[in-house]
Amino acid sequence: MAIVLGENQYGKAEIRVVRIYRDLPRHEIKDVNVSSALRGDFAAAHTHGDQRAVLPTDTQKQTAYAYAKEKGIASIEQYGLDLARHFVDDYEPVGGARLEIEEYAWERAVVGGAEHDHTWIRKGPAIRTADVTVEGTGDEQQIWVVGGLKDFTILKSTGSEFHDFLVDEYTVLEPTTDRVMATALDAKWRFTTTDVDWDAVYAGVLELIVDRFATVQSLALQQTLYEIGKAVLERYDTIAEMRLSAPNKHHFVYDLAPFGLENHNEVFNADDRPYGLIQATVTRDDAPPSGPAWTPQLAWLV
Amino acid sequence: MAIVLGENQYGKAEIRVVRIYRDLPRHEIKDVNVSSALRGDFAAAHTHGDQRAVLPTDTQKQTAYAYAKEKGIASIEQYGLDLARHFVDDYEPVGGARLEIEEYAWERAVVGGAEHDHTWIRKGPAIRTADVTVEGTGDEQQIWVVGGLKDFTILKSTGSEFHDFLVDEYTVLEPTTDRVMATALDAKWRFTTTDVDWDAVYAGVLELIVDRFATVQSLALQQTLYEIGKAVLERYDTIAEMRLSAPNKHHFVYDLAPFGLENHNEVFNADDRPYGLIQATVTRDDAPPSGPAWTPQLAWLV
Amino acid sequence: MAIVLGENQYGKAEIRVVRIYRDLPRHEIKDVNVSSALRGDFAAAHTHGDQRAVLPTDTQKQTAYAYAKEKGIASIEQYGLDLARHFVDDYEPVGGARLEIEEYAWERAVVGGAEHDHTWIRKGPAIRTADVTVEGTGDEQQIWVVGGLKDFTILKSTGSEFHDFLVDEYTVLEPTTDRVMATALDAKWRFTTTDVDWDAVYAGVLELIVDRFATVQSLALQQTLYEIGKAVLERYDTIAEMRLSAPNKHHFVYDLAPFGLENHNEVFNADDRPYGLIQATVTRDDAPPSGPAWTPQLAWLV
Amino acid sequence: MAIVLGENQYGKAEIRVVRIYRDLPRHEIKDVNVSSALRGDFAAAHTHGDQRAVLPTDTQKQTAYAYAKEKGIASIEQYGLDLARHFVDDYEPVGGARLEIEEYAWERAVVGGAEHDHTWIRKGPAIRTADVTVEGTGDEQQIWVVGGLKDFTILKSTGSEFHDFLVDEYTVLEPTTDRVMATALDAKWRFTTTDVDWDAVYAGVLELIVDRFATVQSLALQQTLYEIGKAVLERYDTIAEMRLSAPNKHHFVYDLAPFGLENHNEVFNADDRPYGLIQATVTRDDAPPSGPAWTPQLAWLV
Repeated sequence: MAIVLGENQYGKAEIRVVRIYRDLPRHEIKDVNVSSALRGDFAAAHTHGDQRAVLPTDTQKQTAYAYAKEKGIASIEQYGLDLARHFVDDYEPVGGARLEIEEYAWERAVVGGAEHDHTWIRKGPAIRTADVTVEGTGDEQQIWVVGGLKDFTILKSTGSEFHDFLVDEYTVLEPTTDRVMATALDAKWRFTTTDVDWDAVYAGVLELIVDRFATVQSLALQQTLYEIGKAVLERYDTIAEMRLSAPNKHHFVYDLAPFGLENHNEVFNADDRPYGLIQATVTRDDAPPSGPAWTPQLAWLV
Repeated sequence: MAIVLGENQYGKAEIRVVRIYRDLPRHEIKDVNVSSALRGDFAAAHTHGDQRAVLPTDTQKQTAYAYAKEKGIASIEQYGLDLARHFVDDYEPVGGARLEIEEYAWERAVVGGAEHDHTWIRKGPAIRTADVTVEGTGDEQQIWVVGGLKDFTILKSTGSEFHDFLVDEYTVLEPTTDRVMATALDAKWRFTTTDVDWDAVYAGVLELIVDRFATVQSLALQQTLYEIGKAVLERYDTIAEMRLSAPNKHHFVYDLAPFGLENHNEVFNADDRPYGLIQATVTRDDAPPSGPAWTPQLAWLV
Repeated sequence: MAIVLGENQYGKAEIRVVRIYRDLPRHEIKDVNVSSALRGDFAAAHTHGDQRAVLPTDTQKQTAYAYAKEKGIASIEQYGLDLARHFVDDYEPVGGARLEIEEYAWERAVVGGAEHDHTWIRKGPAIRTADVTVEGTGDEQQIWVVGGLKDFTILKSTGSEFHDFLVDEYTVLEPTTDRVMATALDAKWRFTTTDVDWDAVYAGVLELIVDRFATVQSLALQQTLYEIGKAVLERYDTIAEMRLSAPNKHHFVYDLAPFGLENHNEVFNADDRPYGLIQATVTRDDAPPSGPAWTPQLAWLV
Repeated sequence: MAIVLGENQYGKAEIRVVRIYRDLPRHEIKDVNVSSALRGDFAAAHTHGDQRAVLPTDTQKQTAYAYAKEKGIASIEQYGLDLARHFVDDYEPVGGARLEIEEYAWERAVVGGAEHDHTWIRKGPAIRTADVTVEGTGDEQQIWVVGGLKDFTILKSTGSEFHDFLVDEYTVLEPTTDRVMATALDAKWRFTTTDVDWDAVYAGVLELIVDRFATVQSLALQQTLYEIGKAVLERYDTIAEMRLSAPNKHHFVYDLAPFGLENHNEVFNADDRPYGLIQATVTRDDAPPSGPAWTPQLAWLV
């Protein structure tokens, strides 16, 4: 028996890059948060403190800024691909690179009835995400791209039920045929190719999420998630798999009976904790292996 | 010399009330966070633990939910007035009440090109606020209403300068005639009457904030704040005073010279801390006294 | 009637300065978060964008770092005094300066049974604070120093009651003679002199807070706060006034009756929101005027 | 090709249970945050909204409170085992259960020189964690227990170097032989048995973390992590593997040269973002398979 180094990675987290395109009077903005992680043979750094194979995290940061200028940020998926390929292709010790990028949404300010050329207002709280993993070089290079969004907060005031569940001695929950359903959805979808119109797919997925959430008569949050995943895979051949994580942001009907008041789903307590947490994967049965596509970086150990 | 009780107040903070109006197929939503504070002669509770004059904070919470049903939430200003008057008018020991209310914005989901009847998506991060203070009863009752918004995050990629400032031995800052200006604005405006179309004024103030931020060629964030305040007071006779607090969310031009790249205000590091913090009041010179209008509740001691 | 500039200030918020003393093998650490605000005649910056009287916030930041080296950080009160006097004494347009400083606590790591010379572990979550305000120069200079702590989280599992309160039609709360009491205390105390052993007083106040919280049989959180304030003022002649703000972090006895279990104050739900918020001032009846001592900086508008 | 349901789970997140032991005058406290997730054949809930196999998340919550009374919380590992076994053993559709539990540390208040019987002060920010996964029943039941801590914030003011790293055209970082090293460590260790004195091992691991961090002359954070993992595995036969995730909380030597001041590692800017992020696994080469031990719950999709 020996004690050995196992899986490891290192990188720079949360590099805050803002890119302004100002060649035309009507500027454009890309506001992103970049985290990089390199994988490979860095054993000597761990066992002997030998840094000769280690590209400093500071250099990874510098590169993120330099690439924002040189290559631009057409989409976070493309920007992630550019950075990941650079780290893997150009440095011998780097066997794999993972870029996790968040994009914050801004909408143009409207001034005097017209969209302004160089002023924006922050939209939120939803954040677009891209996770790009590249392994190997040349003909053996493998690439995984995962698009996503997080903190997409959506609520419906009817059209949701929950009943006929398993009951045991600890069950006090009452069944309901009409409740508020709300969540701050995290969703990610895995592509099988890089030949994608990233922005168009993102917009299309978002539209399907809203449509399914709003129009499916929900018997459980599980059902809504499944319907979303199914709709996305039906529309997009380039997506092999979708994962969804949905906190059930409970809105409890407030008990007004002690005050002689009726409450027909009109007044709610929006509770913080605890919350239900429903997580589901919808996939094609012939999806190619996911490899490291879903191996997160910041949450690797959490 | 004696040791005595000074100013004091107590209440329930962050009561999360969601009110759905569902009389018509097209539902409406109000999503608010209510904090109450009562002021008055509560000395005995402090000095002898005597609670006879103390309306429990739990009761204040129950009342917020009950009023959401009974009186509804036409606007957070009106809801705050209803609650504050109730506490002051109906309980002998309560000399004054302050209600601080935040409202979270939701926009209707668009499904199949049409606004959906009962599904909304959370807008953000800006929050609408109202601070209502009521003191005394009957003919001697005094009322202060302050409208506001917070975390209104706005950015302009040009049209901002900063130069010709005071220079000393610790000054290393370079002057600039073209920079990114960004802030997460907190603003509050004090009304002189309750005879106000609260929603209309809120929309109008928001429009002026955006207009002034976007179109004023800014020589300093101070100047932009002043121009906003002036525009608001010029348009609304019912507003006596406006206060603005603006973190200067620094976007530093990233130094790409070591890599042989030029950076003409195209690539920025959006820094977290520290940040400049600019705060200003714009007022009418004949404004009535503000009394307790600006005496906050949660931040009373911070 | 005219529209005019009212109260205003500007500065740099949250400057993160860490000072290591390493002249001896046993190092010392001071870890602080500094916010500065300057007040004075800065009207031209607001009304005309004229910066000639404006010492940039960047310069204020540089000064905080330079002073950490030049003058050191003996205590945050002293460091705040050094910075505030510098801004007021050395710059004509600066009429007043306010320094708000937080200090994060570290305790020495224990290695092999002995305190380590240069390794520390972060204590928390309590933070020590100092608010220093200086106005005017020469013989007319006035100084206010306020010490404090925040987020001091303390809990007692018995020795707390709440009953015999005011009851109305919205009251459903049950009285109790034995409950958990917990808070994350914010407290500040105003000195009447700068001739103080700052660290000794801080330690002494902390000791009194713990003693009073633990040993007073509490009939209300109000009573506990008052007893703390009284004890502090009785011990320290140099303190004129103490302000306390205490969220009542509710621990609700969980209803286990549906499961045939008794719960004699053994199992609690630690709830997040809403929470009671109790705020009190304890003061000497002959305390000198507080002037701007309590006028906060970051929370000025909140 | 068909679209099918893939991996899924559901549960209740962040159940805040506080357990007081009060049989003796000297009370004891356990303050925990419990998250449960159930895995199994819940396909019908997703595809048809059929809840017959679904034990509601509310019931999972009730069970956490009931078990805190019935079985108690001897340690979070034991409490997690009790809950996980219950869900898997007692419900047919539940194939596996994962319990993730955080414990907040309190230390007894000292009053009059003695530890107080029923008052505690919150220690922090470090949090103890346990992740328990149980799959299958009877002889085929498999159990994985992972202990851990997170947000353990530690700093050394010397004894850390970083030099001789890989240099490319984007490298501007200067090498150093003396720097501040600080991190907010997350660490987890996987047990190979449940026959463990959980509290003793936790204390021992914590001691080794501090010892290795303080006394290893660090050539890279990687090296420090590896040395910690090695020491833990050397001491504890019951631990097969340790994972460590360490943000490099940068303390940049502040440039005081413009002010004519020298700065020999005395004054630092403690920066927020970005930060290096170093993650490593130290393992036995004959460790049994980890199965679902490392499959997180809340971060499953992040």
